[in-house]
Amino acid sequence: MLTNKRIISVEFGECDPSGIVYNPCYFIWFDLSVHALLASCGLSLKGLIADCGIDGIPVVDYRCKFLGPARWGDELTIETSVAALHRCAFDIQHRILNGRALVVDCAETRVCTAIDPQQGRAKAHPLPDKLVAAFSGKKL
Amino acid sequence: MLTNKRIISVEFGECDPSGIVYNPCYFIWFDLSVHALLASCGLSLKGLIADCGIDGIPVVDYRCKFLGPARWGDELTIETSVAALHRCAFDIQHRILNGRALVVDCAETRVCTAIDPQQGRAKAHPLPDKLVAAFSGKKL
Amino acid sequence: MLTNKRIISVEFGECDPSGIVYNPCYFIWFDLSVHALLASCGLSLKGLIADCGIDGIPVVDYRCKFLGPARWGDELTIETSVAALHRCAFDIQHRILNGRALVVDCAETRVCTAIDPQQGRAKAHPLPDKLVAAFSGKKL
Amino acid sequence: MLTNKRIISVEFGECDPSGIVYNPCYFIWFDLSVHALLASCGLSLKGLIADCGIDGIPVVDYRCKFLGPARWGDELTIETSVAALHRCAFDIQHRILNGRALVVDCAETRVCTAIDPQQGRAKAHPLPDKLVAAFSGKKL
Repeated sequence: MLTNKRIISVEFGECDPSGIVYNPCYFIWFDLSVHALLASCGLSLKGLIADCGIDGIPVVDYRCKFLGPARWGDELTIETSVAALHRCAFDIQHRILNGRALVVDCAETRVCTAIDPQQGRAKAHPLPDKLVAAFSGKKL
Repeated sequence: MLTNKRIISVEFGECDPSGIVYNPCYFIWFDLSVHALLASCGLSLKGLIADCGIDGIPVVDYRCKFLGPARWGDELTIETSVAALHRCAFDIQHRILNGRALVVDCAETRVCTAIDPQQGRAKAHPLPDKLVAAFSGKKL
Repeated sequence: MLTNKRIISVEFGECDPSGIVYNPCYFIWFDLSVHALLASCGLSLKGLIADCGIDGIPVVDYRCKFLGPARWGDELTIETSVAALHRCAFDIQHRILNGRALVVDCAETRVCTAIDPQQGRAKAHPLPDKLVAAFSGKKL
Repeated sequence: MLTNKRIISVEFGECDPSGIVYNPCYFIWFDLSVHALLASCGLSLKGLIADCGIDGIPVVDYRCKFLGPARWGDELTIETSVAALHRCAFDIQHRILNGRALVVDCAETRVCTAIDPQQGRAKAHPLPDKLVAAFSGKKL
């Protein structure tokens, strides 16, 4: 399935007094990486909201292992892949490499939501067709 | 005029590898302090948006001096005052004390905005009466 | 075992354009809550580093479920408990309630690390005695 | 004098419930831009700390005007220039363009600091020669 790779340099302000990445920054990077994955196949959350009747793709589950440190100035490779597609949800795998060492391994599940007009609150909504096509690696 | 005081402890994750507060955190604190100032007189941005026809109170100007450091574990006092009221804008003064030392002195100007229905974009809007009353220190 | 409870109000700047909490903020709150748990029994990471020969307590594992939304202005209760103590690691459970609804359930594992003088890099280190005593609910 | 230009896309998580950039993010971008300016001439804060006897380049002054909004998905150009060099400090100018509109204009002053061994605290320190050379646009 679809994979996208980003290379980032660990910035001064992303590190804590221990000199390593402040943990919540990884979850910002995961979010940026999901948006970059969408962009890599010509999609955007903004476009999906405008065109497909959904109002968001919130995370419902993270299972994240931190296996080694990343420090100010380190160059990291973030590999983000589609792991599985469900009716209303999709699974993402993030692997972060620091040089050749795998330092973070994270499984993430997101669900498509839409406002239910009768209940006035967000409910799960089937994945938009073009998201399924793109994440399956099919041409539209 | 109205003043509100908050005491905060500098958290681990708010500091950078130098062990001092990562600079952008001050601007988060300024924003929280303006919201706390509103709350101290029974107002909220959410309520002003719902009741007064405005859509936000964005910052248009900061003049901020950093006079000394703040470190992980330091206890800071943030004094936030209304400095002046204008037709569509208001001036705020933030003073941050680390113990008895003044470490940050910041003047901030915010403007009330509302969507102009003809142009479809935000324009300056007169300060809501209840904001003026509260920030002048008058009872409603 | 030890539990600590914090009540927070969801701030404007913690929410994203969907109007719900921007996901990485939860991990900032988890970190603040672990520090608050330490503080609730008279400890601090700073003190542990100074007194016990460790250099940090990095997270090695999160298993986090998001069960419902939290919005700007919502008042949340974060319950943080010690779930298990191991030789060099400890397990934490965070439960976030929005009103009476459980909206986040997160299991976190942290490890105590110290710089190995021969290898010059951080290695797992047995939990300091006073951390074990405090997290077991024993008086020192 | 030296100028560096960066193009960034406004990310979902950098915006607040109003749909515009959450103000403190600009100050993260200013910090990233100063580091990028250093990198554009082969320098880094990390290297300056290691080689030149300084311990940091903290901001001492911001004078920042926000002239227009930036929204989720907007592409911004951040132009960062050296405006003046002083004995122990330097002035930076940041201009952020959204399309052709200038939306942020910020003057920033940073000072070089070093730990004074007698007093045990940071004091102003003359700018390192290689920083002066690079920021003057001279080849080393």
